[in-house]
Amino acid sequence: MTAIRRIVLASRPTGQPEAGNFRIENFELPEAAEGEVTLRCLYLSLDPYMRGRMSDAKSYAAPVPIDGVMEGETICEVVKSRHTAFSPGDIVRARTGWTTNAVVHGDTLTRVETHGAPLTTALGVLGMPGSTAWSGMKFIGKPKQGETVVVAAASGPVGSLVGQLAKLAGARAVGIAGGPDKCAYVKDGLGFDAVVDHRSQDFASDLAAACPDGVDVYFENVGGHVWDAVLPLLNQFARVPVCGLVAHYNGAGSADTDRLPITMSAVLRRSLLIRGFIQTEFISHFGDFLDEVGPRVASGDIKYREDIVDGLERAPEDFIGMLTGGNFGKLIVKIAD
Amino acid sequence: MTAIRRIVLASRPTGQPEAGNFRIENFELPEAAEGEVTLRCLYLSLDPYMRGRMSDAKSYAAPVPIDGVMEGETICEVVKSRHTAFSPGDIVRARTGWTTNAVVHGDTLTRVETHGAPLTTALGVLGMPGSTAWSGMKFIGKPKQGETVVVAAASGPVGSLVGQLAKLAGARAVGIAGGPDKCAYVKDGLGFDAVVDHRSQDFASDLAAACPDGVDVYFENVGGHVWDAVLPLLNQFARVPVCGLVAHYNGAGSADTDRLPITMSAVLRRSLLIRGFIQTEFISHFGDFLDEVGPRVASGDIKYREDIVDGLERAPEDFIGMLTGGNFGKLIVKIAD
Repeated sequence: MTAIRRIVLASRPTGQPEAGNFRIENFELPEAAEGEVTLRCLYLSLDPYMRGRMSDAKSYAAPVPIDGVMEGETICEVVKSRHTAFSPGDIVRARTGWTTNAVVHGDTLTRVETHGAPLTTALGVLGMPGSTAWSGMKFIGKPKQGETVVVAAASGPVGSLVGQLAKLAGARAVGIAGGPDKCAYVKDGLGFDAVVDHRSQDFASDLAAACPDGVDVYFENVGGHVWDAVLPLLNQFARVPVCGLVAHYNGAGSADTDRLPITMSAVLRRSLLIRGFIQTEFISHFGDFLDEVGPRVASGDIKYREDIVDGLERAPEDFIGMLTGGNFGKLIVKIAD
Repeated sequence: MTAIRRIVLASRPTGQPEAGNFRIENFELPEAAEGEVTLRCLYLSLDPYMRGRMSDAKSYAAPVPIDGVMEGETICEVVKSRHTAFSPGDIVRARTGWTTNAVVHGDTLTRVETHGAPLTTALGVLGMPGSTAWSGMKFIGKPKQGETVVVAAASGPVGSLVGQLAKLAGARAVGIAGGPDKCAYVKDGLGFDAVVDHRSQDFASDLAAACPDGVDVYFENVGGHVWDAVLPLLNQFARVPVCGLVAHYNGAGSADTDRLPITMSAVLRRSLLIRGFIQTEFISHFGDFLDEVGPRVASGDIKYREDIVDGLERAPEDFIGMLTGGNFGKLIVKIAD
């Protein structure tokens, strides 16, 4: 019988998280009470936002407490159910955190729907990252025919869908990625119109050259020096949905000078829209998202890439690596068969 | 017979404009061609945005050329007309610039409508500044019953209407102004719920105390240290219409540290909306604005204050003073009776 284990937050990181900020421990699973469901976790999603939950800065969500289970979304199999809506064998999406097994209330679960695509897509292109891309584009970015859309981390689960949705809207998709492999994948694998390597010394001028008509939508998920390169290119009435700032999560992303005045000046002079969001704001549209994107994923029209690692104990090191771009595709931990 | 004079941009300012950046000169008025109208200017509006036009930085509008007439809106009387829509004696709104007389095409003129309020209101509460306040609130700020709206330069033509529109929407209006006279006017004269003096050493804590439930709409027209005080108070889903950055126009407004990361982090964590705009974006709604605000101004329900100075030659010094808060109310130059 497999050990029942979980990974907890041992201490809060300063800057880049380290292995010592996490602790793996065995624990005893409680019996399910009335309305609860006992789960066996199959797949865990690792996402950049989790870095924010490790800190106790004011945020839209409470931080993970010290010694608390690291938060996260999983795909699980129902083992026992004391909730009328679920039966053993059902496959569900749950917020169990980084754990092999869990007992949760059935009301917090949703059945997995992938329109025939593999189960793991429910954590990536058809899950939270996909919904982030879709709602940011649908409700904030609103790309129009002929416009230019720029997105960073373009080989990642959010960026790759942002670019493909831009193409579907008739816009020009320009991706930013790190290194030749990811850049090749963005251009040839995903079909972006252009790709720029943010590690290049000429990154800012490369990006300008890739956007001869300026930028109408910049889907912001990284911050840092990418923002500096994008800002001068933003056209009048450009829209900037902000769903993440990976470059800032570890305390980096600051410059020697105050960049706020130049940013606000651009906002004013070019009537820019900057809007932060998390996909839960648009959760009532999740069904629309699945109906629109799901069949295209299942048919192969929309491409995606997953980076699946094996075993819960791998989660901390792969999570740490992801924050500096070590993964290639949506990072998922396989916990059980 | 009065001299025909105009004020031109003699040189571009670095930082605070000085008298030497302007030059007053006599000129000869051309004869009106077919379709043109000869105007006698009565009132000239002086507004902070003009500082931007004196610089040649990239903007939504072209800069005033060296030796070009300073841009600006005026209320004029038609003296001669070769345009079918206008006759001598008509009172019109025009963009003649800082001049006593002008010949312009009739298609660029609009008849003044003030619903019975004084003519000068067409340059203030019922003109461009009023329209800026109204469209920023209607299309971006969207205050709801019970929310808190904060606006700086609250005794000015934009801020004073922002607060009164907030009250009409059932929101709490908190004004920021400089000095006891302006603060007293904002609270007692305009009926804001609270006012905070930005010159106070305790400005940030005073503002926090005046906004016990945080801030839902911050109507940004100043920037600088006011932004620093407002940012921590912004609630989730707060909206920030940006119509001006007076504190930055003279090159000030920078801090010793990079404030962009903390700003973008707040945008992300609290799902903030920041949107720059100029009122011409919503010019097709100008009639709705007049219909909604005009009768309330004429009846006295909506209050306004004007600071009218006499003589075109006064324009440069009063404009310079306005940029540091020297005026009290909408600054208007009376050019002729």
